Amino acid sequence: MEGHDISQAVIRRLPRYYRYLGELMEQGVERISSNDLSKTMKVTASQIRQDLNNFGGFGQQGYGYNVKYLYTEIGKILGLDENHNYIIIGAGNLGQALANYQSFEKRGFILKGLFDVNPALKGKTVRGIPIRMMEELKDFIQENHIEIGVLTIPKEKAVEVANLLVDNDIRAIWNFAHTDLNLPDNVIVENVHLSESLMRLSYNISRYHQEHKDR
Amino acid sequence: MEGHDISQAVIRRLPRYYRYLGELMEQGVERISSNDLSKTMKVTASQIRQDLNNFGGFGQQGYGYNVKYLYTEIGKILGLDENHNYIIIGAGNLGQALANYQSFEKRGFILKGLFDVNPALKGKTVRGIPIRMMEELKDFIQENHIEIGVLTIPKEKAVEVANLLVDNDIRAIWNFAHTDLNLPDNVIVENVHLSESLMRLSYNISRYHQEHKDR
Repeated sequence: MEGHDISQAVIRRLPRYYRYLGELMEQGVERISSNDLSKTMKVTASQIRQDLNNFGGFGQQGYGYNVKYLYTEIGKILGLDENHNYIIIGAGNLGQALANYQSFEKRGFILKGLFDVNPALKGKTVRGIPIRMMEELKDFIQENHIEIGVLTIPKEKAVEVANLLVDNDIRAIWNFAHTDLNLPDNVIVENVHLSESLMRLSYNISRYHQEHKDR
Repeated sequence: MEGHDISQAVIRRLPRYYRYLGELMEQGVERISSNDLSKTMKVTASQIRQDLNNFGGFGQQGYGYNVKYLYTEIGKILGLDENHNYIIIGAGNLGQALANYQSFEKRGFILKGLFDVNPALKGKTVRGIPIRMMEELKDFIQENHIEIGVLTIPKEKAVEVANLLVDNDIRAIWNFAHTDLNLPDNVIVENVHLSESLMRLSYNISRYHQEHKDR
């Protein structure tokens, strides 16, 4: 596989290509020129060509891109051609919301279990998947080949639980807790810091007001 | 205010500075050198100096940064010195999870209402805030000076509801629906595409496996 020196900016854009190509497939589109893809995605055609050239191109001069082929190849680059078992730690509203995203399953992310410390949640199910207590976590990870741990717990507990997951050989963490985890380099962490996203929104509101205050 | 030509990369980092400075304040730290801030945040000291120079510096040679001052100033840049009223459209698990984030309120984001189409949710409350039906939306926005609409609804309805919000003078949307909204340029949109974040995680898992398969 190529892609060792791909910039994070390109990686950030790939899932968006994947989403648009998936939608085109659903609409029955079999091939698309980089110009048409550019109009649909509101990215320049040269950006698209540059991005996809990182992975060997995929396009044919005068033909454009084969939608299904490109979708499949980008899926492989993103690791979506293999299944990934995951568990959710923290079965509150956010954990349950994520557990209900059926689209994750379609992309190969298989929810195996939810865990919580709240005894009131014990035995409840989300999409048929039971909520378990933390005492069962260790054995469960071993028996179910869990690759990804999703942390939807308060930041006060996040570092402790992340370390527990890593000690039990979980190698990737999707972190929704509002803190940095500082884990070993061989653990892959993807952070979703919602309040930082909200601050970027308010920054842009402020800036817009500043720029238009003289009207 | 300065900051008109600040790169998006710097903007992405500012909320993280804000978070760390807030934690330092909680710990009673009054000032910090860029070197110590660098160690805490795992960013180079020169990166920190560069980033903060975009906004006029804040640091004094030999003294370092005044934590509270820097926290306050970054807060202003991020627009956190003013309150922002918001509503959540979609009172399912994700909408309720966001409604329960009390930390948003501390930063000036004031939740005024939740809306849904599901009559079973009518009159239920989250943190004392009632869930309303969509028919009430228009009047509610006018009467409550709502600035931000949060979309936690399926993508099939997202574009329609986003347009409805914009028609009712909402100028900023925090979008969790898995689609691009294509709104006018004067509407500020911040997307949280969770499945794209999950794909970046699986990309990094794949890449890690590729790089280590020869061990």
